[in-house]
Amino acid sequence: MGAVQSFREMCDRPKNTNVRLSLPAVCIVWQTAMIILFGVFIRYNEESDTHWVEYKKENNIPSDIENDFYFRYPSFQDVHVMIFVGFGFLMTFLKRYSFGAVGFNFLIAAFGLQWALLMQGWFHSLDYTDGKIKIGVENLINADFCVAGCLIAYGAVLGKVSPVQLMVLTLFGITLFAVEEYIILDLIHARDAGGSMVIHTFGGYYGLSISWMLYRPNLDQSSRLQGSVYHSDLFAMIGTLFLWMFWPSFNSAITDHGDGQHRAAINTYLALASTVLTTVAVSSLFQKHGKLDMVHIQNSTLAGGVAVGTAAEFMLMPYGSLIVGFCCGILSTLGYIYLTPFMEKYMKIQDTCGIHNLHAMPGVIGGIVGAITAAAASESVYGAEGLINTFDFEGEFKNMVPTKQGGHQAAGLCVAICFGIGGGILVGFILRLPIWGDPADDNCFDDEPYWEVSHRSQYQVSYRMNSRYLKIVRVQLI
Amino acid sequence: MGAVQSFREMCDRPKNTNVRLSLPAVCIVWQTAMIILFGVFIRYNEESDTHWVEYKKENNIPSDIENDFYFRYPSFQDVHVMIFVGFGFLMTFLKRYSFGAVGFNFLIAAFGLQWALLMQGWFHSLDYTDGKIKIGVENLINADFCVAGCLIAYGAVLGKVSPVQLMVLTLFGITLFAVEEYIILDLIHARDAGGSMVIHTFGGYYGLSISWMLYRPNLDQSSRLQGSVYHSDLFAMIGTLFLWMFWPSFNSAITDHGDGQHRAAINTYLALASTVLTTVAVSSLFQKHGKLDMVHIQNSTLAGGVAVGTAAEFMLMPYGSLIVGFCCGILSTLGYIYLTPFMEKYMKIQDTCGIHNLHAMPGVIGGIVGAITAAAASESVYGAEGLINTFDFEGEFKNMVPTKQGGHQAAGLCVAICFGIGGGILVGFILRLPIWGDPADDNCFDDEPYWEVSHRSQYQVSYRMNSRYLKIVRVQLI
Amino acid sequence: MGAVQSFREMCDRPKNTNVRLSLPAVCIVWQTAMIILFGVFIRYNEESDTHWVEYKKENNIPSDIENDFYFRYPSFQDVHVMIFVGFGFLMTFLKRYSFGAVGFNFLIAAFGLQWALLMQGWFHSLDYTDGKIKIGVENLINADFCVAGCLIAYGAVLGKVSPVQLMVLTLFGITLFAVEEYIILDLIHARDAGGSMVIHTFGGYYGLSISWMLYRPNLDQSSRLQGSVYHSDLFAMIGTLFLWMFWPSFNSAITDHGDGQHRAAINTYLALASTVLTTVAVSSLFQKHGKLDMVHIQNSTLAGGVAVGTAAEFMLMPYGSLIVGFCCGILSTLGYIYLTPFMEKYMKIQDTCGIHNLHAMPGVIGGIVGAITAAAASESVYGAEGLINTFDFEGEFKNMVPTKQGGHQAAGLCVAICFGIGGGILVGFILRLPIWGDPADDNCFDDEPYWEVSHRSQYQVSYRMNSRYLKIVRVQLI
Repeated sequence: MGAVQSFREMCDRPKNTNVRLSLPAVCIVWQTAMIILFGVFIRYNEESDTHWVEYKKENNIPSDIENDFYFRYPSFQDVHVMIFVGFGFLMTFLKRYSFGAVGFNFLIAAFGLQWALLMQGWFHSLDYTDGKIKIGVENLINADFCVAGCLIAYGAVLGKVSPVQLMVLTLFGITLFAVEEYIILDLIHARDAGGSMVIHTFGGYYGLSISWMLYRPNLDQSSRLQGSVYHSDLFAMIGTLFLWMFWPSFNSAITDHGDGQHRAAINTYLALASTVLTTVAVSSLFQKHGKLDMVHIQNSTLAGGVAVGTAAEFMLMPYGSLIVGFCCGILSTLGYIYLTPFMEKYMKIQDTCGIHNLHAMPGVIGGIVGAITAAAASESVYGAEGLINTFDFEGEFKNMVPTKQGGHQAAGLCVAICFGIGGGILVGFILRLPIWGDPADDNCFDDEPYWEVSHRSQYQVSYRMNSRYLKIVRVQLI
Repeated sequence: MGAVQSFREMCDRPKNTNVRLSLPAVCIVWQTAMIILFGVFIRYNEESDTHWVEYKKENNIPSDIENDFYFRYPSFQDVHVMIFVGFGFLMTFLKRYSFGAVGFNFLIAAFGLQWALLMQGWFHSLDYTDGKIKIGVENLINADFCVAGCLIAYGAVLGKVSPVQLMVLTLFGITLFAVEEYIILDLIHARDAGGSMVIHTFGGYYGLSISWMLYRPNLDQSSRLQGSVYHSDLFAMIGTLFLWMFWPSFNSAITDHGDGQHRAAINTYLALASTVLTTVAVSSLFQKHGKLDMVHIQNSTLAGGVAVGTAAEFMLMPYGSLIVGFCCGILSTLGYIYLTPFMEKYMKIQDTCGIHNLHAMPGVIGGIVGAITAAAASESVYGAEGLINTFDFEGEFKNMVPTKQGGHQAAGLCVAICFGIGGGILVGFILRLPIWGDPADDNCFDDEPYWEVSHRSQYQVSYRMNSRYLKIVRVQLI
Repeated sequence: MGAVQSFREMCDRPKNTNVRLSLPAVCIVWQTAMIILFGVFIRYNEESDTHWVEYKKENNIPSDIENDFYFRYPSFQDVHVMIFVGFGFLMTFLKRYSFGAVGFNFLIAAFGLQWALLMQGWFHSLDYTDGKIKIGVENLINADFCVAGCLIAYGAVLGKVSPVQLMVLTLFGITLFAVEEYIILDLIHARDAGGSMVIHTFGGYYGLSISWMLYRPNLDQSSRLQGSVYHSDLFAMIGTLFLWMFWPSFNSAITDHGDGQHRAAINTYLALASTVLTTVAVSSLFQKHGKLDMVHIQNSTLAGGVAVGTAAEFMLMPYGSLIVGFCCGILSTLGYIYLTPFMEKYMKIQDTCGIHNLHAMPGVIGGIVGAITAAAASESVYGAEGLINTFDFEGEFKNMVPTKQGGHQAAGLCVAICFGIGGGILVGFILRLPIWGDPADDNCFDDEPYWEVSHRSQYQVSYRMNSRYLKIVRVQLI
């Protein structure tokens, strides 16, 4: 009890946002560690190594076009855009935290993808003959996916943490992700092509739990900055649209060659289209005068992409995708209207970007949709070979049947939730230590503590015209 | 006469921009209709279905890489970016209508692509054995193309209509498009890979006719908002550049595998490059002090891409592409300088984005270029097999010859114009009904009626320094 | 001596920025020349010509997917985005020169790529049977690469030259590039897939030399405009991120099919990730309070991509890429902190965008890394066939060995530096002629001379609150 008390006190000391030593130290030391670990462990795989010429001959591969690079590289680049421009700009909506949004997103993604190559490599791409991790384009995509989980979590704590905290959040996030992913995909043998469970559910609950641990009772002292201006909302739309447009690539990037990628792209395209309409409908219906709210358009329109993540590669059917999108647009928008304020008021969860509505809840829906679709799969719909291919009923899982697969999918979803909440509480505890340089409650949502910001044009003047003279109502630093 | 009179009066009642019931109703009902129709009609085609494994064996397809997905998906994603970021951001140039530009573009594109999959599917992809429409990546591209026609039309009425009107415009636009496209491509057997006629001519005249029907004599009451600010012009350049860069993908997305896609991309790349130089030349030459006008740079630089749409897949030759781009840059820029004001003053056509100069006129030029190039085709240039492949002189059209094909191309152009003008007048008549929630004449080009806009920093203050004191010249709401 | 004197005087006459005759004349005449030269010289190659059907049969090519279009088109589009959005928006950081940044970038790239197709075509793609240049997608990529050299040079003189000067800079830049590239790649047989030497070193020194020739001793008269505002920094981040994300495509766009493209993409991806962390570290360490500087984040994060340009296709190894990125992030950021001010003060080189730190220096490092990696290549690492493939030890260079290749690489680097400096001095001399319409020293970094700029919202007011009343500190035109 005394320990908790003194920990509390230690955490409540006055804040110092100077990260001049800690941030460079973390970046340099961790990057050096990456170099050493890459030197020991990481090599090119047979498709990116100069021995490909010989490999091709030995395996009777008729053409260079059969190199996995040509199957996946366009999707990889789309995913890459989602990670850096999509997530980065989506978070620029705050009036004075756009540098932090796009800049720290850049930093932690660049670190996270290196650590992810190692962590995922040890679990999935280790060549036991020489103890090396062999990487190719699919590993790059998976590393980007892994990073996405941490960027989702960043959305919950946006504006309230220091870059050093974000690095810590990423280090642990990637580690937890890789373990969770191994359990869900390899041990449980759940399928999760677009990561509804592995990425969005995990990332969502991870971020929400951290935000809960870092609850700031006096955050309203920064409320002047917790809103958007006209052009910051437009910058955020750049993020929204690149996420929306490239989501079909996200969900199809690592699915099976051929029909797998093809079908996943179609399903995602349709689910997202459907979501836009129901988001607009609910946004308009629940606002005074039927006006649309940019927050909903920026975020809830994406929920359909999250929710078809698991089932996109299955025979969800085009109308099935539309239904998933339809429901998610409604639920996600209602979440922004009712759930986010409720969670802040009663559950002490301050969720800056509303990741619960965009990632956690749609991710869970996606996991459930995946479980149902898998359980309902049949040879008459999939074809005998198609069923085996799609669900990978091979090797150790040769005797698997769709109904049982449905159960495994549900189990996978539970693991993702547990890892998200458990991991978030653990990491949140670490991040409460008073050594990370996070801002004070009246200094949140502000680029000023961590960025050289030009001091010009930063006063906001409110006027009121009174017959012939001008009354200055308020001058405020923005 | 009395009926016309009372219709006029009904249309002139005071405006109410509250769309709180109509917009949600339209979105929910139409989306539900989409789900039902998709449930009845739409299935995966043989390349996106799990039966692909078996299909591959039966048809001796040696590798998954032969799946059409790998031929067309990168182009599809580029086209997707053009539709959502390209068209969306191109229209953000107005100082206070950027939310409407990018947001309503998003809404109607998301609806339009679903309706297009159905409409185009019934005409082109219906499997008569089971009465289902079978879709794959090419259908997605065509749906995006179909949507482009409506987005072009949106450019003419930008800032003057309600989102409900835009949904109606899109519903009818897609329907007309699918019919017109079927007539032009299938019945007349015209070729139109990049849609100079089918997309741009139709979309352009459709929008202009609607704008003519919705003529607002007192639109100058909104003139304070009918301009750009510095950063809104920069946002528009994002749209311009993504359209410009990805236009080669647009024109090559559905052309023949192999040389067809390759050649269409090269021709478009060259035509667009050439257009930039002549646009700059004319813009500078016709302005005081030789200063460039952002409106021209944002729009006319794209005219070359429109105008090679039809001929891009033919042997237009690299210099031919340059010539087309050269002429279109000049004509389009002159259109912005002389034609747009003329049309507004004398023809009662208020064309917000100048789509006549960017789409309608270059589209017609493209149709003519296509007809001439087709008529001039010869076996000596194309090769015997090349000629048949390029113009699809097969089946029913086995006895077609290039000169005759030229005539068919010209006929196709006429059909596109007729559908555009006729359809636009019809739809414009419907949109004049006083039930759609469109803004009053003094309330156009403003996001305020349809969007929750943050009220901060929205005063524009003009000052003048007078020796040592400051005179406030004007305070204006922006 | 008298001649130099009178040349100096002629150059110091009052400036007239009216380009109403010169800019249109240059654009129209040069574009016309392009059309004529394309008419005489440029044709489709066998993969983009309608004879492809026959070519395929004759050469036993089993499928259309073997057309080079499908190997390279996705990378081409990524490179295209880098050229127009990447370079264009990267330079929008100045508060009042964003139109010039993105607009002139657009203009000179559109001209440059045409001239590059001709110049590079004469050296590399001339078909001696008919004297024609045969182009395909690889030529388009190379043309974009060639343009990149000139856009880099633009970065050094950003805001200080007229569009006519930029056209001249580009005309000569492309010409010099093509010659230099021919010498380095063909005569010396150096390898330079991502153009560390050919593009970045040449372009960097070319721009710096021109800037040195155009030195403006009184440039501080424009210092009020030589900075960013909040949103101009965000626009620049769009450029940064698209360059960063697509750099793997840049370095792999023209490497060997199969493992060559695959490996180049992986190496670049890793080097860039590593650079981000060290850039952040140094930026934070060298600023007061550890605050990050947007200039560093926007630019130095890209240095790793430049520096692996040459070696990306070699067996640099993943950790090797990380090391290159690690060093370049540090050096480039230190360059911005120490070298740029030093060069301006003591060497009379005014480098607006700091291209020395982003292109010239990392380019040289890249050349050296390439030479070392090539010299260290061995059959045990590359495999016998892999070594020959990677370094193209065929035909005339059949007897080449890695150590010798290392020497050739170093020679190539020297040629690039010489061409850059020599060419820059020559072109700088031409650009000093007082006929080009460049702005006066107190009128730099301003869009006003060359663009119609809306005059609204262009006053910047600084206030200070004093107990209950407001003191206006400064009103400044921005």
